[in-house]
Amino acid sequence: MSFSAQSKGVYAIATTPFLPDGSLDTPSVDRLTDFYQDSGCTGITILGIMGEAPKLEPSESRAIIRQVVGRSRVPVIVGVSAPGFAAMRSLARDAMDMGAAGVMIAPTPALRTDEQIINYFGQAVEAVGDDVPWVLQDYPLTLNVVMSVSVVAKVISNHSSCLMLKHEDWPGLEKISRLRALQKAGELRPFSILCGNGGMFLDFEPERGADGAMTGYGFPDMLTELIGLFAAGKRDEAHDLFDAHLPLIRYEQQLGIGLAVRKHVLKRRGVITSDAQRKPGLALSETARAEVDYLLQRLGRRDKRAAL
Amino acid sequence: MSFSAQSKGVYAIATTPFLPDGSLDTPSVDRLTDFYQDSGCTGITILGIMGEAPKLEPSESRAIIRQVVGRSRVPVIVGVSAPGFAAMRSLARDAMDMGAAGVMIAPTPALRTDEQIINYFGQAVEAVGDDVPWVLQDYPLTLNVVMSVSVVAKVISNHSSCLMLKHEDWPGLEKISRLRALQKAGELRPFSILCGNGGMFLDFEPERGADGAMTGYGFPDMLTELIGLFAAGKRDEAHDLFDAHLPLIRYEQQLGIGLAVRKHVLKRRGVITSDAQRKPGLALSETARAEVDYLLQRLGRRDKRAAL
Amino acid sequence: MSFSAQSKGVYAIATTPFLPDGSLDTPSVDRLTDFYQDSGCTGITILGIMGEAPKLEPSESRAIIRQVVGRSRVPVIVGVSAPGFAAMRSLARDAMDMGAAGVMIAPTPALRTDEQIINYFGQAVEAVGDDVPWVLQDYPLTLNVVMSVSVVAKVISNHSSCLMLKHEDWPGLEKISRLRALQKAGELRPFSILCGNGGMFLDFEPERGADGAMTGYGFPDMLTELIGLFAAGKRDEAHDLFDAHLPLIRYEQQLGIGLAVRKHVLKRRGVITSDAQRKPGLALSETARAEVDYLLQRLGRRDKRAAL
Amino acid sequence: MSFSAQSKGVYAIATTPFLPDGSLDTPSVDRLTDFYQDSGCTGITILGIMGEAPKLEPSESRAIIRQVVGRSRVPVIVGVSAPGFAAMRSLARDAMDMGAAGVMIAPTPALRTDEQIINYFGQAVEAVGDDVPWVLQDYPLTLNVVMSVSVVAKVISNHSSCLMLKHEDWPGLEKISRLRALQKAGELRPFSILCGNGGMFLDFEPERGADGAMTGYGFPDMLTELIGLFAAGKRDEAHDLFDAHLPLIRYEQQLGIGLAVRKHVLKRRGVITSDAQRKPGLALSETARAEVDYLLQRLGRRDKRAAL
Repeated sequence: MSFSAQSKGVYAIATTPFLPDGSLDTPSVDRLTDFYQDSGCTGITILGIMGEAPKLEPSESRAIIRQVVGRSRVPVIVGVSAPGFAAMRSLARDAMDMGAAGVMIAPTPALRTDEQIINYFGQAVEAVGDDVPWVLQDYPLTLNVVMSVSVVAKVISNHSSCLMLKHEDWPGLEKISRLRALQKAGELRPFSILCGNGGMFLDFEPERGADGAMTGYGFPDMLTELIGLFAAGKRDEAHDLFDAHLPLIRYEQQLGIGLAVRKHVLKRRGVITSDAQRKPGLALSETARAEVDYLLQRLGRRDKRAAL
Repeated sequence: MSFSAQSKGVYAIATTPFLPDGSLDTPSVDRLTDFYQDSGCTGITILGIMGEAPKLEPSESRAIIRQVVGRSRVPVIVGVSAPGFAAMRSLARDAMDMGAAGVMIAPTPALRTDEQIINYFGQAVEAVGDDVPWVLQDYPLTLNVVMSVSVVAKVISNHSSCLMLKHEDWPGLEKISRLRALQKAGELRPFSILCGNGGMFLDFEPERGADGAMTGYGFPDMLTELIGLFAAGKRDEAHDLFDAHLPLIRYEQQLGIGLAVRKHVLKRRGVITSDAQRKPGLALSETARAEVDYLLQRLGRRDKRAAL
Repeated sequence: MSFSAQSKGVYAIATTPFLPDGSLDTPSVDRLTDFYQDSGCTGITILGIMGEAPKLEPSESRAIIRQVVGRSRVPVIVGVSAPGFAAMRSLARDAMDMGAAGVMIAPTPALRTDEQIINYFGQAVEAVGDDVPWVLQDYPLTLNVVMSVSVVAKVISNHSSCLMLKHEDWPGLEKISRLRALQKAGELRPFSILCGNGGMFLDFEPERGADGAMTGYGFPDMLTELIGLFAAGKRDEAHDLFDAHLPLIRYEQQLGIGLAVRKHVLKRRGVITSDAQRKPGLALSETARAEVDYLLQRLGRRDKRAAL
Repeated sequence: MSFSAQSKGVYAIATTPFLPDGSLDTPSVDRLTDFYQDSGCTGITILGIMGEAPKLEPSESRAIIRQVVGRSRVPVIVGVSAPGFAAMRSLARDAMDMGAAGVMIAPTPALRTDEQIINYFGQAVEAVGDDVPWVLQDYPLTLNVVMSVSVVAKVISNHSSCLMLKHEDWPGLEKISRLRALQKAGELRPFSILCGNGGMFLDFEPERGADGAMTGYGFPDMLTELIGLFAAGKRDEAHDLFDAHLPLIRYEQQLGIGLAVRKHVLKRRGVITSDAQRKPGLALSETARAEVDYLLQRLGRRDKRAAL
């Protein structure tokens, strides 16, 4: 169950648990790690955008890596996107030294042309070292960098250390199809595609060629079940399961407050102690919390994992 | 059933039907107008972003207004957003002369500061005339202009001719609550809020204070039913209906190909003759069409309107 | 002196003169046309970004084209950039029917990837007709579309009707050098490069490979003299002339108020009757006007054209 | 000569000198510090956007602060802008502990509405501590955050620890006038305004109300002389000096390669050993270097500091 171009299943995007006073909640980090594994996740990604990475001190980032890598039996990927290559390199090297399976790199928001994007990843790979396996993150909605199919293909072709695409372009189903078509045509080597966007299109992505999901939805156990149903060819059952969760998935997929929803669900499921975020962070209003709880209650009638 | 600050229900965002050769499909315009009315819509909005307005010649825009206004028994709103005030003014005056109930104005994409936005709407109202009732469109995802609650409140306060907010900020539930709270506190006069975003949050927006929806989802008859259920206090039934449609609503809410999905559904429902768009426009791939049809088939088991 | 891939010299970006009441100032249009020709301009570009094109009614645009084309002995290029291809096509066809030499097309602001940009110009050429000679406008600062050298080269290669690049990337000197190097290497056919950016780098652009300028600086007679000095190999004299004008060129190159400066200078030179702009438009403050006048007075000591 | 709301003169934006192998060039840091002081600068700003701050390891940032603060007799301001408040806080506290006079904070690029911007600085001040004097950086061209006059005024009013505005909006002359008018009207407390933008408008900014410049132009000795001439009421002499430098100032004010020009000039003046930048960084082409040298040679005829 290593991190490779053949990786499948669900890589959980881990939240970073804090206590109400803003300090790192170390016991919850352990519980969260166990929870993701027990949910059937085949990997864990830490310090991603939803992991509040920029709010951490460098020493805290290292502490989290050490703790999760030390406890996890599945591969751990570390988000190392940074405004400069110095910080990216040192975090990547430290992460690999501590036993991470690889890193995840997103494009820096200023990039515009194909050439700029391709060059950026060239420099990033030079910075972290071409021996470090990595995940390419394609997330235009938040990062504001649009990578065409040919650019993704070029980056993957240029760097044999790029093993996986975290796909969260929106709309993105055709992108998966077109990338897989390039592979079929022999123009692109194998690589794994795990999908993000909170799982919003996970009812169709596997059939398009995705190998699974990399997202932080509060029910990773449902995500792994869903991927399993698709792998078993049970399309209708997969959709039934997905559709039951879609109202909550959709509610969580709100930029800004999505993380608050996610932490609230994880707290209600008993995984983390507090749903606190470090500043800046949006808290759920009382109304919003009631709405999430109503969705959970409705979901609980069909999926007992949500009957809290 | 006039257009006023008390307007409720569903204003359909009308697509503009074309034939495969790119010409206007006049008979379908009539059928579409009838369909929206028969679906219980309380208004129709034409020449909006999803109405392919920028692809129309000025003469074509006028022809569509004349046709829809002439046929509709419910108020017709005309989108008049334009890169310059000259075109905005002439379209608005022409629309009103032809019997439109009002116009819809979106901010021009270059606006950034609160002051710039507020001034822009001041100039827009001066251009179209302060006797023309209008809808303020708040759609950051596409227009790239972010209006805070205080800016929306200021624009509404400045212009008594602004009767309605087309709300499609995302996330946006708190925005509705905060605007209604300002009204309750007596700091803002009454105005209607109809929600867009393809209906993606219409299971909670009415309880937050929205008066209904202004969107072009292919099942306006479901939207009016939904608003009716909320009005009748049947919360659970409303959610049941909404949840059944959410997989399709979500699929349609993909920037770029959403319109293709919408036209495909309207064609399959027999309302328009062709799902053709004028260039530039994304067509559905064969796979995507099959996905939509699969969603329709699944939906058809619960809602006979989708059993096509 | 036709419009071709060999065009050289200065194409004036024409302002659109209005009277204080906002009406078109027809007599000033004639005077301005004569002024540009008498200044030695080899072409005139109308209805560009600085021509307040979006503030004009379609009928007014046509009237201006007819008037300028009818009076000018040099080629007239018409800006036809528009949010949709319908308006672009009809304006382009009308312009050509009235005797314009060609049109100018800028990318629409939403474009991001190389593929999107290249496709857009493909659709634009299809819309206006591949028999219409055109200028490709590359102006990232305002249009927010970044075209790499390879994209510009691809667009030019794809469309034999593209005869000229209006170059106003910033920084952009290397872009000119790289495009000309592609030509030298036989990878790109000949095309004209005229530079914009208000002339801010016109002291080096000709040596980099530019054929001249396309800009609306209030002293087109200086621009043509400058290009002549470079053509004659008088580098130092060219720089002396340029440096004397640079303080004013720089002052004019302020987004938003640049047009107000330009109109003020043209009014003071007796070319146009009023410096009025249509809304929205920034007027010069009294202080700003005094600053411009001070710069003109200083310039007048070295260049008698500025001694007003 | 402390850092206060009454600060005047020139704060040099310090480059960070590297050796060709990418290592920090410590001796050049000393020479640069001395050079700025000997040039009459009243302050030095380190780790700004042009100081390649994101390319530094945290330990390197601290080493530079220690070295410059230890050597400088004028106040040292430290740029602490960061994607997260944790890094901002720790760098700010470390800087103050080492003897910095204050910090500089720019808005994070995602901010859009007035409310978001005002809240951001509230959180930033909470993070660094309201006892830390700071400079508000207003630089829309690069940071993509537009602050209206009322927002700048609000931030300054909210935080008594904000002593200075680094003004580099473009166009920005009216902004200075309007801020000073607010002060005159008693609606805003005193604060210093130093201007950036490479000095591009420093021939008018002092008369508009600026207290001087904060920029890194390769001739800080000219900047201090210029501010002195304005202080002495010698307007024409100030413009003569400015105009002589404007061709080079303008050449340096090219986003992306500006820093390369600046380092080249500082190297030619014997201040730094190498013009190397860390990646990513644009180097000057041979042609560009020759252009800068030509500008220096022309400038050298009027200003012997440039006769190298």
